[in-house]
Amino acid sequence: MGNNVQSAITPKRAEDYPNWYQQVIKASDLAERSPVRGCMVIKPWGYALWENIVRVLDDMFKATGVKNAYFPLFIPLSFLEKEAAHVEGFAKECAVVTHHRLEKGSDGALVPAGALTEPLVVRPTSETIIGDSFSKWISSYRDLPVLINQWANVVRWEMRTRLFLRTSEFLWQEGHTAHATSEEAVERTKQMLDVYAKMAEDYLAMPVIRGSKTAAERFPGAVDTYCIEAMMQDCKAMQAGTSHFLGQNFARASEIRFQTASETEDYVWTTSWGSSTRLIGGVIMTHGDDDGIILPPKIASAHVVLLPIIRKSDDREKVMAYTENLAGQLREIYYHHRKLVVEIDNRDIGGARGWDWIKKGIPLRVEIGPRDIARDSVYVGRRDKAHNEKISLNRDQFVGEISNILDEIQNSLFMRAQKFSKEHTLSFDDRKAFYDFFTPKSSQKPEIHGGFASSPWCGKEACELKIKDELGVTIRCLPFEQENNKDSCICCGKPGIIRAVFAKAY
Amino acid sequence: MGNNVQSAITPKRAEDYPNWYQQVIKASDLAERSPVRGCMVIKPWGYALWENIVRVLDDMFKATGVKNAYFPLFIPLSFLEKEAAHVEGFAKECAVVTHHRLEKGSDGALVPAGALTEPLVVRPTSETIIGDSFSKWISSYRDLPVLINQWANVVRWEMRTRLFLRTSEFLWQEGHTAHATSEEAVERTKQMLDVYAKMAEDYLAMPVIRGSKTAAERFPGAVDTYCIEAMMQDCKAMQAGTSHFLGQNFARASEIRFQTASETEDYVWTTSWGSSTRLIGGVIMTHGDDDGIILPPKIASAHVVLLPIIRKSDDREKVMAYTENLAGQLREIYYHHRKLVVEIDNRDIGGARGWDWIKKGIPLRVEIGPRDIARDSVYVGRRDKAHNEKISLNRDQFVGEISNILDEIQNSLFMRAQKFSKEHTLSFDDRKAFYDFFTPKSSQKPEIHGGFASSPWCGKEACELKIKDELGVTIRCLPFEQENNKDSCICCGKPGIIRAVFAKAY
Repeated sequence: MGNNVQSAITPKRAEDYPNWYQQVIKASDLAERSPVRGCMVIKPWGYALWENIVRVLDDMFKATGVKNAYFPLFIPLSFLEKEAAHVEGFAKECAVVTHHRLEKGSDGALVPAGALTEPLVVRPTSETIIGDSFSKWISSYRDLPVLINQWANVVRWEMRTRLFLRTSEFLWQEGHTAHATSEEAVERTKQMLDVYAKMAEDYLAMPVIRGSKTAAERFPGAVDTYCIEAMMQDCKAMQAGTSHFLGQNFARASEIRFQTASETEDYVWTTSWGSSTRLIGGVIMTHGDDDGIILPPKIASAHVVLLPIIRKSDDREKVMAYTENLAGQLREIYYHHRKLVVEIDNRDIGGARGWDWIKKGIPLRVEIGPRDIARDSVYVGRRDKAHNEKISLNRDQFVGEISNILDEIQNSLFMRAQKFSKEHTLSFDDRKAFYDFFTPKSSQKPEIHGGFASSPWCGKEACELKIKDELGVTIRCLPFEQENNKDSCICCGKPGIIRAVFAKAY
Repeated sequence: MGNNVQSAITPKRAEDYPNWYQQVIKASDLAERSPVRGCMVIKPWGYALWENIVRVLDDMFKATGVKNAYFPLFIPLSFLEKEAAHVEGFAKECAVVTHHRLEKGSDGALVPAGALTEPLVVRPTSETIIGDSFSKWISSYRDLPVLINQWANVVRWEMRTRLFLRTSEFLWQEGHTAHATSEEAVERTKQMLDVYAKMAEDYLAMPVIRGSKTAAERFPGAVDTYCIEAMMQDCKAMQAGTSHFLGQNFARASEIRFQTASETEDYVWTTSWGSSTRLIGGVIMTHGDDDGIILPPKIASAHVVLLPIIRKSDDREKVMAYTENLAGQLREIYYHHRKLVVEIDNRDIGGARGWDWIKKGIPLRVEIGPRDIARDSVYVGRRDKAHNEKISLNRDQFVGEISNILDEIQNSLFMRAQKFSKEHTLSFDDRKAFYDFFTPKSSQKPEIHGGFASSPWCGKEACELKIKDELGVTIRCLPFEQENNKDSCICCGKPGIIRAVFAKAY
């Protein structure tokens, strides 16, 4: 790949967004499909991103008093059945374990043997199995609140999968808390949504809208589901985290009772909240350009790559020594609570080397050649700028300023995403304009159009479903921050009760 | 529980070691059995211990160039079958997924539906599924070495389970590397064993013997298995980590070929190495006493608990303020790369409070009462000393010295464990003495006797099996450090080829 290449990824976003997404992942080496239906292999560059997300979230959870624990991968069928709406929601996509060994069949091939008396479901989520523990741990108001989080893999058998966005197995965290009062549980539900919003905006540089889900979009078994929704560059919404107020539904199902301070008996009030490797899909689609992904520095797999320029073999020793020395110096610098991660790439593959790192989305590329060394300077390219827009910086200045430069990149990514999101978030009170917004014009690619439409809604599921049927658009959330006008429902024209944000969604 | 209690755990180690182990876990709140056969719930106090072990190991792996990644939970049956010895070793204990949804049966109850065309095995280990990725990632010697680690849950369907030591699901890490030469792969196998030994000795305060396994005890499919073996307080051995040289066996099974520097084609040489939540069982049995567990400070779930002494309600505010202030000061102190974890326990439950923390094994207990505050001092109990052996320390002195005190505890635990291990490690060249060593005397509990016996072995599996049949003793390892004399096999008397360490084992 040389300088005459217009973009590193084929197709471009505007040409074929879904295919662009796949090609970006391939080019960046984040992940790949596995031979197991719907499961992905998260490669080191993608897993490092996940590790950084995990560390940030984990610290924020712990700062609110949450402690980590671990519960079984398997859920007995009878547990899942305890909450009617819950089992209804997950029965269609469960991996079911029915046997516990393999045996040679009559033709010599291995077949499942040792049938289980009760089938086990590979957890799609853990409310029921964790509820069972809570029922043993909690007996008095003095035991409350219980604030638990689990980092785990879960399985939901998806028929149509996309790397990171929808896979049969994915990695996530699920928080589960139990409280003495409804108010305290609701407060915790909101608090954890705020944690997700902070993660999205301050670390992933991904602006989000906060709100609650309609009954139709709620977590199966929840009283209320709060969510954060982010806009991708194809103007679709991606749910980036959900926090559920479960009322006493799961406490009843799992018999989690406690003695109150006034010596009566009651069921506890529970919450659950989760975020997953899907966030990586959101990062790709929020920041990626036609040259590949762009990693926000605060969670980047690595911050900077050093590219020694060795044109003559005589230069090799000197250039490599300088490079290694600079790397050592940079690796001692703390950037937002972790040391800078510095890569050195001395492969002799010409211009493809720089392009590889552009496609991998590393925030900074630093070229170091004999002439730079002679001037004690480095030649720096930022991933948020055009690929050929590089500047020469004095080495000391670069070392002294690198944290600020990374913060600048972090901020510029956020500002750019926010601008995009605002431009494509419109208020509609007129039905025709609303329908026009979600109908691609002849000049538009059907997969890139529309955006977020804030419109009044009467609260009836019939209207919600009508719009879904006619436009493929759903209510992403009922935003906490409401505009005043909610006079007439965008669908039926009858009095509205709230403004909803409508969008196509991942 | 009051001062007249002789020990906090019933039974004592000498009375019934296996039951003591269970009671210690219960009293410490580390983990509990789950309603799912053979699976455990790791409670926050136990999970924090695991998190600390993970962090230390992860840092050590990364320092050797290893990167983390993630591979599917499920392994197609056909993959497992690729390596004959491998599938033989795991077929008897596999959780098998055969269906991908649940449906209402004729009686209204849910039954598995959507049968899979090929059953999936929940990974018992991931050589075959990772091998499949390696076969895609590697094509040239320039791609080597590939150094990957995965943190994951695995399932081996065990019929008899014990918390941490043997459970159907457990947490572990599995490293998988591929190399261009046999020598480099063997070197990596040894290097990772050294990492495990360092983890065991320097962090878990658990002395170990390093060596290789006999063919009978080898990992299914490996050419050679190296291991570290630690002695528990019942004189049995626990394998605390294994590192396997897999030769080209798995490369052949998964078709991992590469072009060599001399432009020929060859299979890569692979290794795998693992350690698991079993290490926690080892910590319990190495250091626990009749009052419960003792956590080595470097990996302790928390380092110190502050116990405010409030006898009159007038004192409450002052004592709590002092306690909170001290906690804040301590929480800023770094101890071995992490900040001190400080608990405050102000429950009004009398003497049971201190005993709770003794049973939880926290390294330091600090009592703070009005008289201590008046003298600006604290009253400190160390978990490695008798429960009533406490000393008063000036506050500043305590704050200034706490890291040293914790290091002292860490060292004293290691020295004590090393002394015990040495006392029960004996060399035998005489068959009768060897058999006597492993036969409990009438005065001994059958479950606590023997130890490690270093004896010459002829190398024949027949002798190994004879000793196993007659004494229930196996060869734990062929130590890297060998004594000179290996004249005659401890079993058959024919010429020995090596000294082996024999022991009963977990």
